[in-house]
Amino acid sequence: MASMSAVLSKSPFLSQPLSKSPSSDLPFSAATVSFPSKSHRRGGVIRAGLISPDGGKLVELVVSEPRRREKKHEAAELPRVELTSIDVQWMHVLSEGWASPLGGFMRESEFLQTLHFNSLRLDDGSVVNMSVPIVLAIDDEQKASIGESKRVALVGSDGNPVAILSDIEIYKHPKEERIARTWGTTAPGLPYVEEAITNAGNWLIGGDLEVLEPVKYNDGLDRFRLSPAELRKELEKRGADAVFAFQLRNPVHNGHALLMTDTRRRLLEMGYKNPILLLHPLGGYTKADDVPLSWRMKQHEKVLEDGVLDPETTVVSIFPSPMHYAGPTEVQWHAKARINAGANFYIVGRDPAGMGHPVEKRDLYDADHGKKVLSMAPGLERLNILPFRVAAYDKTQGKMAFFDPSRPQDFLFISGTKMRTLAKNKENPPDGFMCPGGWQVLVDYYDSLTQAGKLPVPA
Amino acid sequence: MASMSAVLSKSPFLSQPLSKSPSSDLPFSAATVSFPSKSHRRGGVIRAGLISPDGGKLVELVVSEPRRREKKHEAAELPRVELTSIDVQWMHVLSEGWASPLGGFMRESEFLQTLHFNSLRLDDGSVVNMSVPIVLAIDDEQKASIGESKRVALVGSDGNPVAILSDIEIYKHPKEERIARTWGTTAPGLPYVEEAITNAGNWLIGGDLEVLEPVKYNDGLDRFRLSPAELRKELEKRGADAVFAFQLRNPVHNGHALLMTDTRRRLLEMGYKNPILLLHPLGGYTKADDVPLSWRMKQHEKVLEDGVLDPETTVVSIFPSPMHYAGPTEVQWHAKARINAGANFYIVGRDPAGMGHPVEKRDLYDADHGKKVLSMAPGLERLNILPFRVAAYDKTQGKMAFFDPSRPQDFLFISGTKMRTLAKNKENPPDGFMCPGGWQVLVDYYDSLTQAGKLPVPA
Repeated sequence: MASMSAVLSKSPFLSQPLSKSPSSDLPFSAATVSFPSKSHRRGGVIRAGLISPDGGKLVELVVSEPRRREKKHEAAELPRVELTSIDVQWMHVLSEGWASPLGGFMRESEFLQTLHFNSLRLDDGSVVNMSVPIVLAIDDEQKASIGESKRVALVGSDGNPVAILSDIEIYKHPKEERIARTWGTTAPGLPYVEEAITNAGNWLIGGDLEVLEPVKYNDGLDRFRLSPAELRKELEKRGADAVFAFQLRNPVHNGHALLMTDTRRRLLEMGYKNPILLLHPLGGYTKADDVPLSWRMKQHEKVLEDGVLDPETTVVSIFPSPMHYAGPTEVQWHAKARINAGANFYIVGRDPAGMGHPVEKRDLYDADHGKKVLSMAPGLERLNILPFRVAAYDKTQGKMAFFDPSRPQDFLFISGTKMRTLAKNKENPPDGFMCPGGWQVLVDYYDSLTQAGKLPVPA
Repeated sequence: MASMSAVLSKSPFLSQPLSKSPSSDLPFSAATVSFPSKSHRRGGVIRAGLISPDGGKLVELVVSEPRRREKKHEAAELPRVELTSIDVQWMHVLSEGWASPLGGFMRESEFLQTLHFNSLRLDDGSVVNMSVPIVLAIDDEQKASIGESKRVALVGSDGNPVAILSDIEIYKHPKEERIARTWGTTAPGLPYVEEAITNAGNWLIGGDLEVLEPVKYNDGLDRFRLSPAELRKELEKRGADAVFAFQLRNPVHNGHALLMTDTRRRLLEMGYKNPILLLHPLGGYTKADDVPLSWRMKQHEKVLEDGVLDPETTVVSIFPSPMHYAGPTEVQWHAKARINAGANFYIVGRDPAGMGHPVEKRDLYDADHGKKVLSMAPGLERLNILPFRVAAYDKTQGKMAFFDPSRPQDFLFISGTKMRTLAKNKENPPDGFMCPGGWQVLVDYYDSLTQAGKLPVPA
């Protein structure tokens, strides 16, 4: 890719030298890793080099510079399919090979395997994980306009072609079935469904994707959007012999940080010489009440500046995927995509990619199903799954400890909701919950909402 | 099993020698097999002997005679879980190894793998298909009564223990998620859901099953309920070198018969010397408007008596599973279970295990998804899938032919609804649609409903 050299000059956040972990004299929520024997069994021997991508080869679908002009001319002549912003995010995901070996928006056979088996069988009989449909919807009118053409141009919101889809297949979009099998519910109010499925067309169009230029968002954050190939280069440059990925879509607090540093310590104990953390915030569509990417990145930057994480052994990058909030189904996608970026360890918490049930007063998913499903998922056998138990401030010991369900009264938790309420009210959390610089970013974010009239003034 | 010798003396229906196929001078619906190259590829070489059961060994969970007394004493001391009639059918299924290698009602890890992957990974890393949850629900009260016991007795409707479940695991019954992931909808009105899930308990109990006696229904049809072991013995006795299974839950018409005889002809052409048809009507729970098992068996008997199928190369037996009407998900179960009974070819039609959407005016499943999903399903790679295209009476040729979608006006179909309407009105279908003896059974069945006041008198 033409932008490769520019992209590789992106460096992880500059920050202060690593200082000691924050004080744990006061209550804060945290989490720590457990290494079940199962993960060990699946890990195999320690070896040099990064884990190979799914299918053996990283898919890259951006047209090379010399051929761009020609492809743009071709695209100008084709029937056009206009992309939504979420479609563009999926195109981005596909173009860089996060979904390797998938070579474009899914055709029906891939869509059906994803819905029913959360995996794809390749021609050689091997199986790769693929749990979330990566599909492109079109309506009756678009279908009619495509007619008998076997290729279409995908067009951005400015009307310019951004990609070509070839050898296309158009098939029915069974929305209800897609939703039921992906989310395990059809209750109204699922954010991704309302944003991207309910009003989408009744047809899906699959095919081989060629993207005309690397996808850029021009939001000041493109330098953090390293592709799997770029991440692999960076990880190799650093001499990583283990890469542990941490997916997040929330601000980092000291519990997360403790978990990540503890994971590195344990990997060193296991015999790895240079484990590298891939701190990998999700950058695509998120629901309205999540903290937006730009604010989260500011917060993550402060966390590294404050020395909570070691920049020498941490790579911060943005994962371009949209968020489904599909719990056990989606966590597989989150893990699988990181294999393609070179990660061979994946940290999974309580209720990953979960949310409240949109209608009933309960969590949509059992909090333990995510890690259970992940640990059994087809095509993820090569990945070491690292579940972690939640830790919290133990008042009897005056420090962080594993939560002990037999004496819940001794522990203090700060939930995401509690955290948001504190930040909205410009109150401080207990010392040690989050570095002060990071906390100030959150306060500023909620203040900006209040100023913009998007939040009621706190009482 | 003590009843083995008695069971093996069951013979398939006695019938007339095979006569020529019925006249096709008049319109009737039928179907015929296509052998896609994919099926061939998966078939592998022709070899003697039956296909091995999933997991390598047929599971048999009926306590052997010498230990029954002791086990019954044990059962009498255990906490009790009362079974519904559908629970008993699943217990029957498990006890004979139709779900091999499953050794009892599912624990949570099996349940989750079934919901998410339609398959189970075994300890050796191999994968078997398992698409339908085989679970046992209990309510809060039953859970409380079990307490800390690691074993329970399963009790029939007469209050007597029929089985022991050991090393039990009790876990949450996520009904909405189970329904959504199994049926691809949560619309009200799914027959199995209303019968067996909606009012079931909020917990599931899994464990290792020991059934105290072979399951019998004493309905005059037990002699047709051959277990997988018994079927394998029968198929071996007949020297089958290919076994092709035909699942059905409807009366057999001449279209089915043509399909089955045509399949045998093609298998002979492929080089098999003695292909045997396993005509395998489903015997468990079916929805209210399906023809009941006893009437279907009478109808099948007439079909064989009338020589429509060759008794020398046909084994008729009852498959004890309840029906889910879960389309592409369920057809995998129907196929997988037949592997365990020795079948290496499986005939799949249009919209297998499908039904109308319970709320919307459309079929619940795409008519082609069943065979597509089946052909890609994990754990079924050893099975040859034989999809068939629907055939109908071609008026321009005056004979049966493949349906040609470009000239639909030339073909005559008789749908299931149309067939039922004719039988209810005591009208005859076109000559050649079904043998007269078989048709009379249907007329008698609907007449019995009318007599019992369960059907309006036809106009």
